[in-house]
Amino acid sequence: MNKSCILLLAGCFTAVVSTAQTSSILGFSPAAAEAQLAAEKKFDDNLAAKNIDVLIKKMSAVPHHVGSPGDEANAKYILEKFKGWGYDAEIETFYTLFPTPVIRILEMTGTRNFKASLKEPTLKEDATSGQQAEQLPVYNCWSADGDVTAQLVFVNYGVPGDYEKLARLGIDVKGKIVIAKYGQSWRGIKPKVAQEHGAIGCIIYSDPKEDGYFQGDVYPKGPFRPAFGAQRGSVMDMPIYPGDPLTPGIGATKDAPRLDRKDCTNLLKIPVIPISYADALPLLESLEGPVVPDEWKGALPLTYHAGPSVNKIHLKLSFNWQQKPLYNVIAKLKGSEFPDEWVIRGNHHDAWVNGAADPLSGQAAMMEEARSVSELVKTGWKPKRTIVYCAWDGEEPGLLGSTEWVEYHADELQKKAVLYINSDGNGRGFLDAGGSQALEPAFTEIAKSVIDPQTNVSVFERRRSFDIVSAGSSKAKKELLSKNTFVLPALGSGSDFSPFAQHIGIPSLNLAFGGEDDGGEYHSIYDSYDLYRRFKDPTFEYGVVLAKTAGHTTLRFADAESLPFDFRNLQTTISKYAADVIALADNMRENTQVENLLIKEKYYTVANKINDPLLPPVVKTEVPFLDFSALQNAVANLAKSTDALHVAGSSNTISAAKRNELNQQLYKAEQALLTKDGLPRRGWYKHAIYAPGFFTGYGVKTLPGITEAIEQRNWKEAQEQIEIAATTINNFSAYLDKAANETK
Amino acid sequence: MNKSCILLLAGCFTAVVSTAQTSSILGFSPAAAEAQLAAEKKFDDNLAAKNIDVLIKKMSAVPHHVGSPGDEANAKYILEKFKGWGYDAEIETFYTLFPTPVIRILEMTGTRNFKASLKEPTLKEDATSGQQAEQLPVYNCWSADGDVTAQLVFVNYGVPGDYEKLARLGIDVKGKIVIAKYGQSWRGIKPKVAQEHGAIGCIIYSDPKEDGYFQGDVYPKGPFRPAFGAQRGSVMDMPIYPGDPLTPGIGATKDAPRLDRKDCTNLLKIPVIPISYADALPLLESLEGPVVPDEWKGALPLTYHAGPSVNKIHLKLSFNWQQKPLYNVIAKLKGSEFPDEWVIRGNHHDAWVNGAADPLSGQAAMMEEARSVSELVKTGWKPKRTIVYCAWDGEEPGLLGSTEWVEYHADELQKKAVLYINSDGNGRGFLDAGGSQALEPAFTEIAKSVIDPQTNVSVFERRRSFDIVSAGSSKAKKELLSKNTFVLPALGSGSDFSPFAQHIGIPSLNLAFGGEDDGGEYHSIYDSYDLYRRFKDPTFEYGVVLAKTAGHTTLRFADAESLPFDFRNLQTTISKYAADVIALADNMRENTQVENLLIKEKYYTVANKINDPLLPPVVKTEVPFLDFSALQNAVANLAKSTDALHVAGSSNTISAAKRNELNQQLYKAEQALLTKDGLPRRGWYKHAIYAPGFFTGYGVKTLPGITEAIEQRNWKEAQEQIEIAATTINNFSAYLDKAANETK
Repeated sequence: MNKSCILLLAGCFTAVVSTAQTSSILGFSPAAAEAQLAAEKKFDDNLAAKNIDVLIKKMSAVPHHVGSPGDEANAKYILEKFKGWGYDAEIETFYTLFPTPVIRILEMTGTRNFKASLKEPTLKEDATSGQQAEQLPVYNCWSADGDVTAQLVFVNYGVPGDYEKLARLGIDVKGKIVIAKYGQSWRGIKPKVAQEHGAIGCIIYSDPKEDGYFQGDVYPKGPFRPAFGAQRGSVMDMPIYPGDPLTPGIGATKDAPRLDRKDCTNLLKIPVIPISYADALPLLESLEGPVVPDEWKGALPLTYHAGPSVNKIHLKLSFNWQQKPLYNVIAKLKGSEFPDEWVIRGNHHDAWVNGAADPLSGQAAMMEEARSVSELVKTGWKPKRTIVYCAWDGEEPGLLGSTEWVEYHADELQKKAVLYINSDGNGRGFLDAGGSQALEPAFTEIAKSVIDPQTNVSVFERRRSFDIVSAGSSKAKKELLSKNTFVLPALGSGSDFSPFAQHIGIPSLNLAFGGEDDGGEYHSIYDSYDLYRRFKDPTFEYGVVLAKTAGHTTLRFADAESLPFDFRNLQTTISKYAADVIALADNMRENTQVENLLIKEKYYTVANKINDPLLPPVVKTEVPFLDFSALQNAVANLAKSTDALHVAGSSNTISAAKRNELNQQLYKAEQALLTKDGLPRRGWYKHAIYAPGFFTGYGVKTLPGITEAIEQRNWKEAQEQIEIAATTINNFSAYLDKAANETK
Repeated sequence: MNKSCILLLAGCFTAVVSTAQTSSILGFSPAAAEAQLAAEKKFDDNLAAKNIDVLIKKMSAVPHHVGSPGDEANAKYILEKFKGWGYDAEIETFYTLFPTPVIRILEMTGTRNFKASLKEPTLKEDATSGQQAEQLPVYNCWSADGDVTAQLVFVNYGVPGDYEKLARLGIDVKGKIVIAKYGQSWRGIKPKVAQEHGAIGCIIYSDPKEDGYFQGDVYPKGPFRPAFGAQRGSVMDMPIYPGDPLTPGIGATKDAPRLDRKDCTNLLKIPVIPISYADALPLLESLEGPVVPDEWKGALPLTYHAGPSVNKIHLKLSFNWQQKPLYNVIAKLKGSEFPDEWVIRGNHHDAWVNGAADPLSGQAAMMEEARSVSELVKTGWKPKRTIVYCAWDGEEPGLLGSTEWVEYHADELQKKAVLYINSDGNGRGFLDAGGSQALEPAFTEIAKSVIDPQTNVSVFERRRSFDIVSAGSSKAKKELLSKNTFVLPALGSGSDFSPFAQHIGIPSLNLAFGGEDDGGEYHSIYDSYDLYRRFKDPTFEYGVVLAKTAGHTTLRFADAESLPFDFRNLQTTISKYAADVIALADNMRENTQVENLLIKEKYYTVANKINDPLLPPVVKTEVPFLDFSALQNAVANLAKSTDALHVAGSSNTISAAKRNELNQQLYKAEQALLTKDGLPRRGWYKHAIYAPGFFTGYGVKTLPGITEAIEQRNWKEAQEQIEIAATTINNFSAYLDKAANETK
């Protein structure tokens, strides 16, 4: 059925209106929607997988970490591309501390002598794997300098619960070097928690269970991590603050005031190094002491013991603590009607080594998106709002480029930024998206507008099918079958959305495709073009799909008459988070009561095994009943405000001027959820609803002030944080009420 | 507080009666209870761990499988011991088919040539591991003869659900040889299901995840299975019938009529062999095809693929199908009042090799128990009922000795057998018991009367503490804290209780201690005295604890004035089983509806991954609503009968003669739960409430006729089996009503 047909029928039968809604879009009048869909069609038609292939290959040809020639060359290449496509583009440079390794020694002496290779071998099947002169060696960026010798203890993933278990096994890591597996938490948590428990050094290894042969065939036969593959990565304590450690909260310009390194609160005091499982095997084999719990065991052919080792481990690391430039490429396409309203789209360009997947698969898709937008411009189309493309530098060491840019431009961004759309690595598979829940209705529509190349259904429907099929029970499957909205999970950290969302309250969206691109190349020399084209997105079609999804989002928010934020979805989500945090306290109360009883009445003692002994857990303080009423009332109140705003915003009688004013209110609304002082002990994180977890790193905590105070059994702070969250939510309600009233 | 003190106080204050109840026992008058407790005290005091040590060492000195010189020698040794202790003892011999291997070849040819060793190495740390001349080599007893060459497919545990998954991976085993891991199901299920799916050979290997280095240090450093350790064992289809395959249902006496071997319905048609993981490794490495699901993966250092292999596997096996004698040692101590009421206590004496743990740890404990009973006799004590000790032969190949004895003496046993108490392997740890639920109150009392040597609480309390501490949630912990009864799980198969309980309806109890005795020696040459004394029960104290627990049970049922069966517990249990089977149908109905919808509406197709593809499951027949009302009414009706019987049996006015008549009614009651025709297609199993699962082997199915018909989606048979179960339960109620009435 062609479009004129639909219009004809719509004139005759009101019953057909729902059919005509195939050309309606949230935030657009019918006529504007038709034009928008036509523009999106042209945009889609201009995208070519081949271009993405070429960009990934070109930009991954040499290593391009912060401060390297490849990094600068890529930034200049991206700049030239954007300029060539007609963007007002520039490189905005910041200056960051950036340590690179000078000495790396890990060895074992005693009944068995061993020296770790700390080196990833060149493979003849991988063209760029032999660029040893340009490669950063295997290391954890922001490790302390150190020279330590001690016994070794295995700490599983190295998260706090693992140390509780070690205590029950009778093992203390004080004065020891710990070895932790990659996985479960963000890597930076592992040395931080080890340091808190008195360890003097930390080794992180890639167990084959996580991303090696347990998962699938290893590179070059398959995409999984080979025996000597290791994972580089940052161990900055980003849950304190990201960005240049010397300039928290301000842009790291050439002459910005800087902290002394020893005063940085997000840097480690112990040395830490990542190793391959080939290097880990002799160390793990040297451990004695109790056999670890089953859930701690990896896939190496040995009995996993907790330690300590009889043999001594020697770890010596030193670094060159230099200042390096960060080259952010910023490209603008000025809005025709609202040039001071910015839709911002970003992806980083720096990598640990060649970075074909991370970040170039996302970077290339973003560039192809920007090129296709420029083709639209050639047809006479112009965005109503300004579109800003950002290619960030220094994401890998700690979101450096984006954080410094956001900190430097904070005031301007809080006035102008409508939405930040982020991507990073990308691959074949299913749509993965997270972000501000007020975006859910609009994003659902967008996800339904992009077709999955393998199945010919929308990327929304493909993801929904996957979720339904993967759900654990028939009940869960039925519940998902009854739903037709893309639920946006809250954002934690791990990519460049963090400063936008959590530091200055810009509505944010993070996009990726994946699930058919599993591998073990992450942060190794094997994250190469050769691996990518074989295993991650062989036809580069999912680069195109990412460009479409992000592009439709960019174009719709750039051109919408009414910005499609729906805060009812946010209210529903906050209401769920409030219920979660109340349940957390209730469950902890019951668990504490029962556990304390079992400890005091010696059930643990009697149940103990002589050949597998576990000390009883320690008695914990009982969980008091907290007063959640302020939070509950605030959430209930917010429902009225979001409903009223929806009614007011849906009115057909709002003038264009009022509508434009309302748009500004809407995109700034999330800033009302920031708190003045931020989270306790980490004030950089100002969002009252989401933050990366202090002990999870990338993983999000919702209502983080309350949640983490309860988890840390700090009842006084929990009560204070309840009041702060309630006040913030009430302020947000008042803000929305004001916006609704001003439409009248 | 000594006993006279208690009596004194009890005379003064009725409030102290509860304290005085420490000397009350179910089924005994206060005076009789006091005498009984005194006898048990003497019985306990006479037990000595050293004797158990000596017996295990002596009887495990050489291999003693069916038909071996060691087997005959042990039978004669046991006979002489019992005779020496004053028992009326004899060896009762049956004659069974028993295949032993002649040719065993397993090899791979193609891109890699490999010949499996099929041999367990001698260890200098293990004194009996070098007895190669006497050892049965590694084999599966009752494998077919065969000479097959084919590609290999990995089938996980080889249970039916695994083949459903293989079908979704696009893999068919028809004409192939399969390799399955030990674990999850009884081993005999694996080749049976493989054969049903068209496989022409079967290999079963011990993955180190199950009982090797994943679990703990391997022998001789620790007790777990070393690289070349393999698990012998029977693959007779015991869920059809156990015992000599040639004589189902009748005793295998010298001149009993015998089937032709080809007509036996419980023998395989394909060859099957067990191997070590050292032998399995090259075979598994040769597999190609899809990577298996995570839950299929073991602990070997490779990527587990499903297959098929490119290389060809050659498996050639032939056996000597001979007749061998089975030496059951039967020792009686005649009852002074009720010589024709028998309390039967049994444990097998045959092993696959040296069998220190399996079965001698249980056998030695039983012998020490019998010796201590004989010491009681020397003091003038005599049991009221006859006690029968049975040392069974041929348990390992298929419960041969016990089954033939039960089949031969079925009529006599159905008149005389009060209770059968079984044990088998035993070790350090927690009480494990299963059996007829009418025994729960009495057994709870017994378990509270035996003190755990490591913790000084009762074995009841220690097990309860372990269950509470191990429970998954605070809710589950609280529920267990509120309970104070030993719940007896239903018996499946896997030891000599099966013919008593499931073929002729004798109340049965199976006892063991364990949980601190884990290892990987099972059915290998390393199940030795050297391993046992280092890792299983180093002080032999748990042998004493087993002797106490089984001994108290034997003595109380031998001497009780009123036999302490409480059928209210059985009714509660059957009521739960009925609810389970109704929930099974309801859950299957919902699952089928949802799955069929997902298949038909192509959710599986859309969710499919290109690099990890899964075909959609096949559409299944919808689950109809079955009429469970007959079962529900029967269970409700049974509650009235069991309550009424309890009231009648608790009366103080029953005459001694009536009491003795009632006792006979009580111990024969469970026979009323037998059905005339037994289970469909396996009529040997006659119990309406419990049977080993057709596809689990050892694992029990409750209300098995109904449960398995539903699981097999045979709705007509399910409805028929509901009616049969209901009729049987109603007959049981009528039987109990009659017994209650006859007390008046």
